[in-house]
Amino acid sequence: MVRIACVVSYDGTHFSGFQVQPNGRTVQEEIEKALRKIHKGKEIRLHPSGRTDAGVHARGQVLHFDSDLDNPNMDWRKALQSLMPDDVVIQRAYPVSDDFHSRYSTKKKEYRYRVLNRDIPDVFRRGVTFHYPCKLNIEAIQEACALVEGTHDFTSFCSKKTTMKGDYVRTLYSVRCDVVEDELVFTFIGSGFLYNMVRILIGTFLEIGSGRKDVTDLKEILAAKDRDQAGKTAPPQGLFLWNVDYL
Amino acid sequence: MVRIACVVSYDGTHFSGFQVQPNGRTVQEEIEKALRKIHKGKEIRLHPSGRTDAGVHARGQVLHFDSDLDNPNMDWRKALQSLMPDDVVIQRAYPVSDDFHSRYSTKKKEYRYRVLNRDIPDVFRRGVTFHYPCKLNIEAIQEACALVEGTHDFTSFCSKKTTMKGDYVRTLYSVRCDVVEDELVFTFIGSGFLYNMVRILIGTFLEIGSGRKDVTDLKEILAAKDRDQAGKTAPPQGLFLWNVDYL
Repeated sequence: MVRIACVVSYDGTHFSGFQVQPNGRTVQEEIEKALRKIHKGKEIRLHPSGRTDAGVHARGQVLHFDSDLDNPNMDWRKALQSLMPDDVVIQRAYPVSDDFHSRYSTKKKEYRYRVLNRDIPDVFRRGVTFHYPCKLNIEAIQEACALVEGTHDFTSFCSKKTTMKGDYVRTLYSVRCDVVEDELVFTFIGSGFLYNMVRILIGTFLEIGSGRKDVTDLKEILAAKDRDQAGKTAPPQGLFLWNVDYL
Repeated sequence: MVRIACVVSYDGTHFSGFQVQPNGRTVQEEIEKALRKIHKGKEIRLHPSGRTDAGVHARGQVLHFDSDLDNPNMDWRKALQSLMPDDVVIQRAYPVSDDFHSRYSTKKKEYRYRVLNRDIPDVFRRGVTFHYPCKLNIEAIQEACALVEGTHDFTSFCSKKTTMKGDYVRTLYSVRCDVVEDELVFTFIGSGFLYNMVRILIGTFLEIGSGRKDVTDLKEILAAKDRDQAGKTAPPQGLFLWNVDYL
């Protein structure tokens, strides 16, 4: 038995998310189908670092699976890539030790969110940005980013649809908003993320940037532990699972 | 009567080209449908600077049409944009003089072609680049670009499917190949272009870059006036009608 880890990119546009579900096409299903072919019909279970929602992209999702094809000459990346649809790319795939686990061994995760902040939409970025044409106060947004850094109870920034049990305390090591030409590119590096947490943070930041909320409201929103106090959930197409760190 | 000129972007991925045809969705059809709504059912004929093929994109396609809605306060860009599908964006729309013609008044056109030149595909650029993983000799390609600049008979670089009559002499004012990170970005500025001309030039340049043709073959290919001497037609998704100049 050999454990294989993969780094995978996917364009979330035409997926109903990562995880297998009764209706809709999923990333897990596409890769498990490929694994089944490689293993002559045997079911192989795929373990991701975490799920992503419908429409959310991944630049560097990490997965692992166990195989009985213990052939040291096998090029797993090529074998898998040759069976992928064109919206999934296997970046790397290689044997890891048996105690590696794509989910439990995670140390840090990085998400990015792209906001196209100009009047006119861009046809070529409509699938990878959230078009938000309002004038924005960038300094207020950057202050807001700094305020959510650190260890907080993020209940107010977690979807009510979560089925998670346990506490809602997470640590954000770094939250940035960089202006890159006509985009705001948000970067979140954290110990872990709650359901819809980045998208609710973005929705709240944009309300602060457009003046509908004040940056000083953020402390109260965090303290309230109430989802209804935070801003709207920003749409999925601006969100990327960028990187998963195990060190 | 007022003549309106528009600058339009579209993502060619889900279009069977610009021009109305019996089967498949076209850009012309989408915009003429919007014009019909604005003109209460009246048919308005749209004139582009030229057609684009199925799958080809436009950053700055130029169109004109004539309207009897001679209202100086009308915001044509907003009126049209509000009726566009999400893969067409009206960048600008404004009244022009009656002797302006989007096709006949053209002075120069610029096309760009993006080649992704790395081993592994990129899910987020698969619709806007041609993935060509071979090692390429960039200097040879840049020499080839310089050789096709100027006035030539481009019969060898015109699809046999053309229905055009007249001569095949065109002037390319500038042909460049720039390396931008992992892409080759080709820029063609010319007086006019034949059917599939840019895509056949790209196909030929890539055969030169990968060593299957020699850059010195180019003169013979041009002189032969024979499509079969040139390289394959590169796929449409790397091609952008970038700009149309009227000055």
